[in-house]
Amino acid sequence: MKIPSSSINKAENTSAGGFSSKKYVYSFDEGNRTMKELLGGKGANLAEMTKIGFPVPFGFTITTEICDYYSQHQDYPEGFAEQLEEKLNFLEVKTTKKFGDVNNPLLISVRSGAAVSMPGMMDTVLNLGLNDKTVEGLARSSKNERLAFDAYRRFIQMFGDVVMGVSHERFEEAIEKMKTDKGVEHDTDLTAEDLKQLVQEYKKIVLDDAGESFPDSPYEQLKLSIEAVFKSWDNDRAKTYRRINNITGLKGTAVTVQAMVFGNMGEDSGTGVAFTRDPANGSPEFYGEFLMNAQGEDVVAGIRTPLPISELEKVDKNSYHELLDLREKLEKHYKDMQDLEFTIEKGELYLLQTRDGKRTAQAAMKIAADMVEEGLVTKEEALLKIDPNQLNQLLHPQLKASASRDVIAKGLPASPGAAVGKVVFTADDAMEWSTEKNEKVILVRKETSPEDIHGMHVAQGILTARGGMTSHAAVVCRGMGKCCVSGCNDVMVNVSAKKMIIGDLVINEGDYITLDGSTGEVIMGEMDMQKPDMVKDFGTIMEWADEFRKLDVRTNADTPEDCKVAIEFGAEGIGLCRTEHMFFEEDRIYLVRQMILAKDEKGREAPLKKLKEIQKGDFVGIFDVMGARPVTVRLLDPPLHEFLPESDVHIEELAKELKVDVTDLKEVISALHEVNPMLGHRGCRLGITYPDIYKMQVQAITEAAIEVSSRGVTSNVEIEIPLVGEVSELKYLREVVQSVIDEYKGKINFEYKIGTMIEIPRACLTANEIAEHADFFSFGTNDLTQMTYGYSRDDMAKFLPVYLDKGILARDPMAGIDQKGVGNLMQVCVGLGRQEKTDLEIGICGEQGGDPESVEFCHKIGLNYVSCSPYRVPIARLAAAQAVLKSK
Amino acid sequence: MKIPSSSINKAENTSAGGFSSKKYVYSFDEGNRTMKELLGGKGANLAEMTKIGFPVPFGFTITTEICDYYSQHQDYPEGFAEQLEEKLNFLEVKTTKKFGDVNNPLLISVRSGAAVSMPGMMDTVLNLGLNDKTVEGLARSSKNERLAFDAYRRFIQMFGDVVMGVSHERFEEAIEKMKTDKGVEHDTDLTAEDLKQLVQEYKKIVLDDAGESFPDSPYEQLKLSIEAVFKSWDNDRAKTYRRINNITGLKGTAVTVQAMVFGNMGEDSGTGVAFTRDPANGSPEFYGEFLMNAQGEDVVAGIRTPLPISELEKVDKNSYHELLDLREKLEKHYKDMQDLEFTIEKGELYLLQTRDGKRTAQAAMKIAADMVEEGLVTKEEALLKIDPNQLNQLLHPQLKASASRDVIAKGLPASPGAAVGKVVFTADDAMEWSTEKNEKVILVRKETSPEDIHGMHVAQGILTARGGMTSHAAVVCRGMGKCCVSGCNDVMVNVSAKKMIIGDLVINEGDYITLDGSTGEVIMGEMDMQKPDMVKDFGTIMEWADEFRKLDVRTNADTPEDCKVAIEFGAEGIGLCRTEHMFFEEDRIYLVRQMILAKDEKGREAPLKKLKEIQKGDFVGIFDVMGARPVTVRLLDPPLHEFLPESDVHIEELAKELKVDVTDLKEVISALHEVNPMLGHRGCRLGITYPDIYKMQVQAITEAAIEVSSRGVTSNVEIEIPLVGEVSELKYLREVVQSVIDEYKGKINFEYKIGTMIEIPRACLTANEIAEHADFFSFGTNDLTQMTYGYSRDDMAKFLPVYLDKGILARDPMAGIDQKGVGNLMQVCVGLGRQEKTDLEIGICGEQGGDPESVEFCHKIGLNYVSCSPYRVPIARLAAAQAVLKSK
Repeated sequence: MKIPSSSINKAENTSAGGFSSKKYVYSFDEGNRTMKELLGGKGANLAEMTKIGFPVPFGFTITTEICDYYSQHQDYPEGFAEQLEEKLNFLEVKTTKKFGDVNNPLLISVRSGAAVSMPGMMDTVLNLGLNDKTVEGLARSSKNERLAFDAYRRFIQMFGDVVMGVSHERFEEAIEKMKTDKGVEHDTDLTAEDLKQLVQEYKKIVLDDAGESFPDSPYEQLKLSIEAVFKSWDNDRAKTYRRINNITGLKGTAVTVQAMVFGNMGEDSGTGVAFTRDPANGSPEFYGEFLMNAQGEDVVAGIRTPLPISELEKVDKNSYHELLDLREKLEKHYKDMQDLEFTIEKGELYLLQTRDGKRTAQAAMKIAADMVEEGLVTKEEALLKIDPNQLNQLLHPQLKASASRDVIAKGLPASPGAAVGKVVFTADDAMEWSTEKNEKVILVRKETSPEDIHGMHVAQGILTARGGMTSHAAVVCRGMGKCCVSGCNDVMVNVSAKKMIIGDLVINEGDYITLDGSTGEVIMGEMDMQKPDMVKDFGTIMEWADEFRKLDVRTNADTPEDCKVAIEFGAEGIGLCRTEHMFFEEDRIYLVRQMILAKDEKGREAPLKKLKEIQKGDFVGIFDVMGARPVTVRLLDPPLHEFLPESDVHIEELAKELKVDVTDLKEVISALHEVNPMLGHRGCRLGITYPDIYKMQVQAITEAAIEVSSRGVTSNVEIEIPLVGEVSELKYLREVVQSVIDEYKGKINFEYKIGTMIEIPRACLTANEIAEHADFFSFGTNDLTQMTYGYSRDDMAKFLPVYLDKGILARDPMAGIDQKGVGNLMQVCVGLGRQEKTDLEIGICGEQGGDPESVEFCHKIGLNYVSCSPYRVPIARLAAAQAVLKSK
Repeated sequence: MKIPSSSINKAENTSAGGFSSKKYVYSFDEGNRTMKELLGGKGANLAEMTKIGFPVPFGFTITTEICDYYSQHQDYPEGFAEQLEEKLNFLEVKTTKKFGDVNNPLLISVRSGAAVSMPGMMDTVLNLGLNDKTVEGLARSSKNERLAFDAYRRFIQMFGDVVMGVSHERFEEAIEKMKTDKGVEHDTDLTAEDLKQLVQEYKKIVLDDAGESFPDSPYEQLKLSIEAVFKSWDNDRAKTYRRINNITGLKGTAVTVQAMVFGNMGEDSGTGVAFTRDPANGSPEFYGEFLMNAQGEDVVAGIRTPLPISELEKVDKNSYHELLDLREKLEKHYKDMQDLEFTIEKGELYLLQTRDGKRTAQAAMKIAADMVEEGLVTKEEALLKIDPNQLNQLLHPQLKASASRDVIAKGLPASPGAAVGKVVFTADDAMEWSTEKNEKVILVRKETSPEDIHGMHVAQGILTARGGMTSHAAVVCRGMGKCCVSGCNDVMVNVSAKKMIIGDLVINEGDYITLDGSTGEVIMGEMDMQKPDMVKDFGTIMEWADEFRKLDVRTNADTPEDCKVAIEFGAEGIGLCRTEHMFFEEDRIYLVRQMILAKDEKGREAPLKKLKEIQKGDFVGIFDVMGARPVTVRLLDPPLHEFLPESDVHIEELAKELKVDVTDLKEVISALHEVNPMLGHRGCRLGITYPDIYKMQVQAITEAAIEVSSRGVTSNVEIEIPLVGEVSELKYLREVVQSVIDEYKGKINFEYKIGTMIEIPRACLTANEIAEHADFFSFGTNDLTQMTYGYSRDDMAKFLPVYLDKGILARDPMAGIDQKGVGNLMQVCVGLGRQEKTDLEIGICGEQGGDPESVEFCHKIGLNYVSCSPYRVPIARLAAAQAVLKSK
């Protein structure tokens, strides 16, 4: 919709009565950083910088209320045009330039900016105010005709694109043609004359494509740009972005108008970027680079090599010292390392932008620790500035940042770190290549199963074609601290031919690939790695985190080795010890299979007895390491068929081993088959139908705890019954467990509780009933998320990429707690549970227990602890501290 | 715990202060039927009958409060013993007999009875008051020594068993030995002398087994019996029963003491049972039988043949006319057909028991209709007396009730009715046998899939080894009104050998079996059947039901034929039309497979175009039948791999048909394979990843509605998007659907809505968001139940029987809505949905929509309609009316 040119000067319809007396436009010296709602993030920040006295180019901001008014009326309120004019006049006074003036033209930038940063809206128009006349004035004042026309043609292109909707490719084509015609390679090789010609061609393109002339009047340019910003607030991309990111309650975007400055106005001008500290290692040195007589994009273009920032002292001593002074002021003001952009126009230093600087994890640690020591920030402030997810960098090997990547496929970033090795396709091959040939291997599987564990142990990293963030491969790798890329749909694995196919690419056994488990990238060839670098400041930061956090942090660990690693990382107990993992090792699987294939309880007796001794040994190992720390032991959870072979070859082997008929064995295996094993005969359902299995496990636990007590270790065991959805299940099995323990009356010199995992929606809805019979709850958010959404983590890779791509989901719900659905159920559960038992211990042991956002949520709803894989324990400790600090 | 003999006379500890002034014992003439809480159901009923003037043997009832007191104190409150004595004295006066008197002994029965009938508690002790002396008095007063000693030995056995805990087998052994020794066959052949001897042996057994003598004192007998009743309230069986049936808030059981009467005191005595109307066909005739000089158990024993009740007029005219008079009074009082037991003692008629009589469905209809006509009950009362589930008898063939059953296995009663036929094991065999050989067949499968439909159509009934109440077989059979037994775990099916094995029994192809789909029984051989019998009263009852119900009743139907049946049964629309069933027919499946196996949208275009035409035809057929009634069409729901073959043979066939490489085809099928298809790539997830499939379906719907409109039919279509768990899914697909409809702008002359099925827990929890974009909700409680419990209906047969057996679950949650869990989510959903949209249409289309209890629940939470399979529509109509009447 076109707005009559008059409307910016006078509103035709001012239905909102009180509007005329309001302030709609703020000069930079009239606002501050608290005014984000009204001025947008950008406008408030520039006002703040102006207020502090930082040398930012002057300007003003049109409020978000105008955007709101415009959305409703496609017009402006009375008084707006006058205010706009007033601020524009003031800007002219401050810059001593005049908008549209032929001799000393004021050029401005126009930017959108809501209270929350929002890609999807119109971004920026630069050099606004240029036309065929003012461009001459710029040429004169800069004494550089080329500069002026280059600025002009850029302005037409940008304005044409974002305001008038002309495809930017048409401009690209024109400049490419010009370069070809002139026989030059770079844009910078075009002369002022060339650019003059290009300006004319650009104008033709605009007329041709938009059906309207490029507007000569600077005021018209400004009016249209402002309109374009407001319209961009309601375009599809912006709306989708807001929906996905759940951004609501905003009035609209503000519009910030700022005077342009030029770093290419001669040798007394220049431009640069700098960090107030070294972003790579955190050392407190001024770090950056600059170019004289250049614009920001010249630095990026890479045609001229920028100089280190320290060299600026030689070239422009004043500006350099001003910068050093600024550096100190910025850190003092923002209380963080800053990443700043500056321009020097004819010897005058301008700060164009400053923001918290990105940094490596190592730098983040050092900067946080240093700043506390320097008295710049408090411990609390320092802790809040570290991104917990970044700690992964400190705990896992990484690819060298500099190296270029030949990415051939992308899967899910299932377990962080990086790995390089030769491709193998079976666990046995992984064993053989790594132990006999001493090769580093990457194990590639369609999906992994517990039978692959030995291969996973020796592999550098794992790549799977199927499975999500909580697939077997993902969970096991995170536990091992090993790199894993899962659910890589593009990979077709052909095990028998020992090759995998990605599109047209065939990768054979023995070919090198590289995995980046933090991005999900699969890279061709052998890339350089860098070891994780545990800096001393890590310990300091973790200590501080522990001072503040309220949540305990436990770990999910099934072996003494995992327990040791986790304790080193600060774990305060085990939140989930999965007993079934113990069943897969070579010496046990045979007994397990014997037990499963037994016809009745009698037949199960002998193998269970042997299994009990072995499990007791497992628990002794774990209890010895864990001491008096709580250890939550989950009784057998997976369906029994997971322990049986699937392929004919393996079934035949097993039949021979067990001395049974192959056909009979196949029949039994087929009878155990399930259509939806995730929702099948597992967890407490097994415990109820085969109580002898759970009894054996409780015996093993009890005897192990009694044994370690002879060494003075008082274990603290939490016996956990999985998959309870109806209180009768828990009641029944609690009695079974208790009766086993009672058999050891008089010898029980350890602490124990009997409780349940909460992983079935119905358990949350009936948590008051369940709490009556539970000493503790532990949320199994993996399964709870699967059932609440109706997603199978093993299958969701089929639609999740499309969902993320189309914005149906903002995030993989297995990676972080979905607060609206799953979180809602958790809150209901905590409420009902504690209504029955005020001091009920409640924790979380799902994979999401190591996700910072989820940790914060767990803190908010009053859990007692989070439990995650050993390598995520430090992340959880920091996130738990941040949760407390944020809620203050 | 033993109670000192004194304690019944004087309480030692009366901590409850106000207790002594209370009334603890009520004679039958002091109570009425509203006093169930205090007197138990039995006591209140006897008091009521006494009040009305029915000739019940006199007695009194000890209140439930005494049970409560006893539970807490193991003792009785002050004043209780005195009241008990007083009532006992009054009973002696009324009967002109004396308790413990040697000449004219008062004999009594002692019974437990809580407010709710509760198997699991102590039931009854008869003939209490007998000992070695009073037995002689009884012999004298009855002039029948044999009678006296038979009563005595029965009393010892009953008392020994239920009060003293002596195993009743020991008594059985003794009497069997006596019969063998005497060379007689029946108990009745034993003489008075034999019985005297048996009494002595019984007493020895008691002493030996219980370690205590059989108590001679009638007072001691009474005291111990009362104690036994109170203790039985807290025994495990009773507690389990209360837990399973969710019986809470009761104080305890009452104890009813009643004078014994004897029908075997000579030829002027007798006993009988009668129904006030014919329980088989409902005709208003007095119906029953009697035996003179006999006890109730003689009628059951079958040694003497009872006479029809009308014969009594000849034998004892007075009693007969008194009975006729009673018959009328009973119906007038209880407003229902009564099943009564009577005894004549020396010419005196006693009514021992009366209760609402069990009846066939046919009789239930006729009695209800007649009673309204007779002015005995109102329509409302008549409707409430019919068990909706009983209507199944009217709609499906049944086994003849008289025939004895050789039950060889038991599965789930998945679809009611009965079926007889020869066993076949594949759908193709079913076709061949039934069409070519003209045989009636029963199709036995491990589980059925859509590929079996043609075999299911021709079979008499279906038996499956796997799958629950909502498995494919169950759902399809209920839709067809065909008998089905599912999840029959004991059956091992061997398709290749064409046999099935049940334990040691082998059943081959061609052997006869019989199925009872109402009980889940599998019966050996060919049983007699009776046709369903649609009585004229059925229509009357249904009409009345429609007058009262508030819920609409729709049907789940996918074909014009099903629609016609459902409309005949009174369906007011389609609540669920599953479009995928249409894809399986022979002419379509090839196109569906072509579509699925196409590489991209382009390749899907041609098969989709052809499918559209076919689906359009389907919808035209349905819309023509349904007219202006609402039709909810669910867009494609199942995962695509369900449409592809699984076995190698079929894959090879398909490869040939499609002219593609077998290996390639296998690879594609394997890539589509899912670990948990129930939670996989289906429903709206398919719609989002393959929007062209949904577009085709919406085109077919729209074009069909346009076509029938040319015949003057204004269709009313509800386009339903399945499996929504996140509002963005619905929002996205709603736009897709709307955009397709918009393409027909100007031609849309039918009603349509766009809504969603609510079957994911998360959808309930975020129903307010979803309602914003939905014109209607329809609960898919099958999937909702599966996800809320974490049960797979295809796999739950593995543990459900054990769960029901151990009382972990009271009922299969797929058969009726679990109100605590699933129902809770439904209520949350209705609340949130209507909070966003006050008049949001909400229905239910899960199988539970035809379950009377669930229908009542749906009424309570304010749904607009229920939808069920055609054959359950009448059940739902009646249940919906009852829901309204009950809430009044």
